Amino acid sequence: MNNRFQRIGLIAKYGSPAVGDTLRRLIGFLGERGLAVTLEASAAEHLPDSPLPRVERPQLAEHADLVIVVGGDGTILNAGRSLADAGVPLVGVNLGRLGFLADVSPDHMTEQLGQILAGEYARDDRSLLHASVHRGEDTVSVSDALNDVVIHKWDIARMIELEVRIDGRMLHTQRADGLIIATPTGSTAYALSGGGPILHPSLDAMVLVPICPHSLSNRPIVINEASEVEVTVHAGDYTQAQVTCDGQINFALLPGDRIRIHKKAHSLILIHPPGYDYFEILQTKFGWGRSS
Amino acid sequence: MNNRFQRIGLIAKYGSPAVGDTLRRLIGFLGERGLAVTLEASAAEHLPDSPLPRVERPQLAEHADLVIVVGGDGTILNAGRSLADAGVPLVGVNLGRLGFLADVSPDHMTEQLGQILAGEYARDDRSLLHASVHRGEDTVSVSDALNDVVIHKWDIARMIELEVRIDGRMLHTQRADGLIIATPTGSTAYALSGGGPILHPSLDAMVLVPICPHSLSNRPIVINEASEVEVTVHAGDYTQAQVTCDGQINFALLPGDRIRIHKKAHSLILIHPPGYDYFEILQTKFGWGRSS
Amino acid sequence: MNNRFQRIGLIAKYGSPAVGDTLRRLIGFLGERGLAVTLEASAAEHLPDSPLPRVERPQLAEHADLVIVVGGDGTILNAGRSLADAGVPLVGVNLGRLGFLADVSPDHMTEQLGQILAGEYARDDRSLLHASVHRGEDTVSVSDALNDVVIHKWDIARMIELEVRIDGRMLHTQRADGLIIATPTGSTAYALSGGGPILHPSLDAMVLVPICPHSLSNRPIVINEASEVEVTVHAGDYTQAQVTCDGQINFALLPGDRIRIHKKAHSLILIHPPGYDYFEILQTKFGWGRSS
Amino acid sequence: MNNRFQRIGLIAKYGSPAVGDTLRRLIGFLGERGLAVTLEASAAEHLPDSPLPRVERPQLAEHADLVIVVGGDGTILNAGRSLADAGVPLVGVNLGRLGFLADVSPDHMTEQLGQILAGEYARDDRSLLHASVHRGEDTVSVSDALNDVVIHKWDIARMIELEVRIDGRMLHTQRADGLIIATPTGSTAYALSGGGPILHPSLDAMVLVPICPHSLSNRPIVINEASEVEVTVHAGDYTQAQVTCDGQINFALLPGDRIRIHKKAHSLILIHPPGYDYFEILQTKFGWGRSS
Repeated sequence: MNNRFQRIGLIAKYGSPAVGDTLRRLIGFLGERGLAVTLEASAAEHLPDSPLPRVERPQLAEHADLVIVVGGDGTILNAGRSLADAGVPLVGVNLGRLGFLADVSPDHMTEQLGQILAGEYARDDRSLLHASVHRGEDTVSVSDALNDVVIHKWDIARMIELEVRIDGRMLHTQRADGLIIATPTGSTAYALSGGGPILHPSLDAMVLVPICPHSLSNRPIVINEASEVEVTVHAGDYTQAQVTCDGQINFALLPGDRIRIHKKAHSLILIHPPGYDYFEILQTKFGWGRSS
Repeated sequence: MNNRFQRIGLIAKYGSPAVGDTLRRLIGFLGERGLAVTLEASAAEHLPDSPLPRVERPQLAEHADLVIVVGGDGTILNAGRSLADAGVPLVGVNLGRLGFLADVSPDHMTEQLGQILAGEYARDDRSLLHASVHRGEDTVSVSDALNDVVIHKWDIARMIELEVRIDGRMLHTQRADGLIIATPTGSTAYALSGGGPILHPSLDAMVLVPICPHSLSNRPIVINEASEVEVTVHAGDYTQAQVTCDGQINFALLPGDRIRIHKKAHSLILIHPPGYDYFEILQTKFGWGRSS
Repeated sequence: MNNRFQRIGLIAKYGSPAVGDTLRRLIGFLGERGLAVTLEASAAEHLPDSPLPRVERPQLAEHADLVIVVGGDGTILNAGRSLADAGVPLVGVNLGRLGFLADVSPDHMTEQLGQILAGEYARDDRSLLHASVHRGEDTVSVSDALNDVVIHKWDIARMIELEVRIDGRMLHTQRADGLIIATPTGSTAYALSGGGPILHPSLDAMVLVPICPHSLSNRPIVINEASEVEVTVHAGDYTQAQVTCDGQINFALLPGDRIRIHKKAHSLILIHPPGYDYFEILQTKFGWGRSS
Repeated sequence: MNNRFQRIGLIAKYGSPAVGDTLRRLIGFLGERGLAVTLEASAAEHLPDSPLPRVERPQLAEHADLVIVVGGDGTILNAGRSLADAGVPLVGVNLGRLGFLADVSPDHMTEQLGQILAGEYARDDRSLLHASVHRGEDTVSVSDALNDVVIHKWDIARMIELEVRIDGRMLHTQRADGLIIATPTGSTAYALSGGGPILHPSLDAMVLVPICPHSLSNRPIVINEASEVEVTVHAGDYTQAQVTCDGQINFALLPGDRIRIHKKAHSLILIHPPGYDYFEILQTKFGWGRSS
């Protein structure tokens, strides 16, 4: 990764009217600096009359050495999963509300992107998880997650029974509504609602958070991200379960399916303006007073 | 309610082979005492050759002044909802594993039922909830719950938004996987998995327990059982939610549906052997050492 | 309790400079209405030159049929314990920051007190706890609590072992940093920090919340306020424990001491301006968005 | 560290009668193998007539390339803090009750130690924390912790206010009963009682767990063990606080004191019998059924 970005790709949140204005200001700003700009399909949709080149998501990495995403954390999750493998860094411009990932605000966009384009920025590598579903001898599904892989009941009111192994060793068999396996990035998302701890992004770790566990002695467990987690959905007449990545990709499970989760080889490269302070974002998002 | 029971109704768990033996021993024991025994359909299924009279569930109350349920807590939940209105008391015989409700063990069955039939027992009234679903001007569903009414997401990975009012006053609007409204009886079931407190059965109270709430400052709230709770499912393109009573009765919700929950006028009358000790059951079920 | 108050007693927070101004405005306002005003010592300290009669705390109830407390919740806890027995109602004026108990703000004081003095108000009875410490045959300490009775380790780093009985029945023996027994009023104070639920003030209940319990299966338990709780501090070479009421009254315990807690016969009568909404106070204090 | 141990040091729990027998069996077993055995003072106390050489704790590392500790986890915490710097590995024999650290049982002692002495064992490095207290320009206290550093209120009923910085950046200012900073080893001890997650011992991490925090949005935070934590006790008339390491070493704090915590350069080398399974210990200690 070069530290001076020349070719900029743009991704945007679908269907949000405010995005068009921000994109136009952004393109004007980038054009003044003589940078090559390429629109991914989602950004192009907001700018039907733009003469800029437009590509589909899988091709974007070939045309960009920095991708700017305009949207919320959900848009970045989606973009991040596709950009991580290509090693193209990403910076997130939010739509007026600070995100954990989208931390450039439209109001300070030109100033902060100016610094980043001048080579002043903080690089922040975020791990992704890879989840595969195994049925007998077959691998029936694979997908990635930047936040979390969730195995949960579906379409039923009762709990499911999950057997959890870590690096081949039995952790436990538990009845619960489900199990969240989250990255540090995902620790401030759904896993936090489930009672999990906050993991600093620099940690080489993932956290297992049970959802409404039947056993009172269950607790979130933080394990090494080099470990492989294997979850088996126990057989049962009425078992219905699903695996979901980042709350965006679903796959229906059958009894006996094994879900294997491990860290992906490539991380997502997030770019922040200089002075990025993770703890300040926690304070703002969670309303932690400096003297509460 | 007379304190000497003469006519005994029998309800049993479906499809559990051990039940038949226990039922036969029970019928022998009751017959020796000259008591009239009536089989509800679920018990009759286990005893195809029995000459005893058999009735459907809705008719059982007319033929019994005490109903003995052979099964687990799930069987009692089901039986309890149908017997509460008729005011017929219920005693639960478990299948070898102590239940919160089914506290007579097969091993001590004849001794403990002997005491109960001799008029020595502890009466324990348990409140039920009544839930109704309102769509525009219509009431589209009504059902009862001995444990809990749960409003929860269904068939979707994302959270739902619920507006909660108590006696007409706004409590809050929250995003969560769902909301549990539990009786004291239900406080040791699903509500406990969701992080709720244990409520002693003698309390005139219900507890609202959020499931994986998005806001970190959400907490379980115990309110007066004389209160009415109204939950509105907020409109959204992808909203899919369901209301479930005791984990056994489901009803699909539409955006804008209002679910009203209040205490039923009639309680379930549970009968325990003398010396019943609620705290001892907590200790056994939760593994609380007397000196842990 | 008459619903038109004629004789007003004033209690104030010690040592807070802003209190003097509020007291003077309050006295002017009450004087215009021709009401008899008596200063308790704490209020008199702020007004050394006032010609109004002044009395000590134990005499105040004889001179007042309504007591106005200027201060925070801590000041009201203190005043409430002494006024409950006398049956004199209390209204709380806060110092600019909404309290759970002190819900009249200085800015709306004259308007809201005007309504209350005109007989328009909401009456809100709050239970208190009575705690006594028994050593052998002797009762070595008695005190009351409006929020909570806390039995906790003191001067030691290690946990203490507590045996808890409810109405003479063993609940459990647990090792912990301590145990909080809270009223509904206290459920939003220290008990909440310890992980307890919120109890609506109308509940006839108290909650037992363990502080950092050693056993993972420990949970808060809500019991009937008619119950008596007895806690025994187990003997141990290094045991040092203390009982604290409302965080304000301390008593040092010895191994073997038994602490008995039950509801006081008299409740504190809190007076609120009309339109008082408990849930709105929860929203404000906990930052619950109406659409978070 | 050589993988064949020749010189064995013995440390034992003080004042526990069962220890003497285990020590004698152990010495017999080690003598048969021709190994040099040195008694640390705590072990010598149990064996007043033994002809074996005896040394004080600080000298033990010079005489041993493996130390066997007979006692519980508390004894190992104590021994571990003194042995880590010297790089002498440690194996723990419990007194009949499995410990997280003392995982060799007296019943299997000869078999398991035989394997370890034959070079078959699992090495398990555990990080320690170093805590120093700074008052103005002075460093007024230093100590180490294998489990946790706890900053907590002392001798007072009210909360203390703590300002927490990580690597010089403000995390937050919080009011609480205290703050636990735990290693992965300590995550299953006091931090777990405070609501913290379990951290696998292989993690390069520490966890900050607030004790009864006043703010509802406070959560445990797991940070990189390369970080430095600085906690400042805020000034206040009545502030009384203390810092405690492993529940064994106390130091009284004054308002304004800064406590700095970082990872020690040297880890403790724990030796386990072959087949050591951390998750199996969790299951046993927490009663996790394999099919609960």
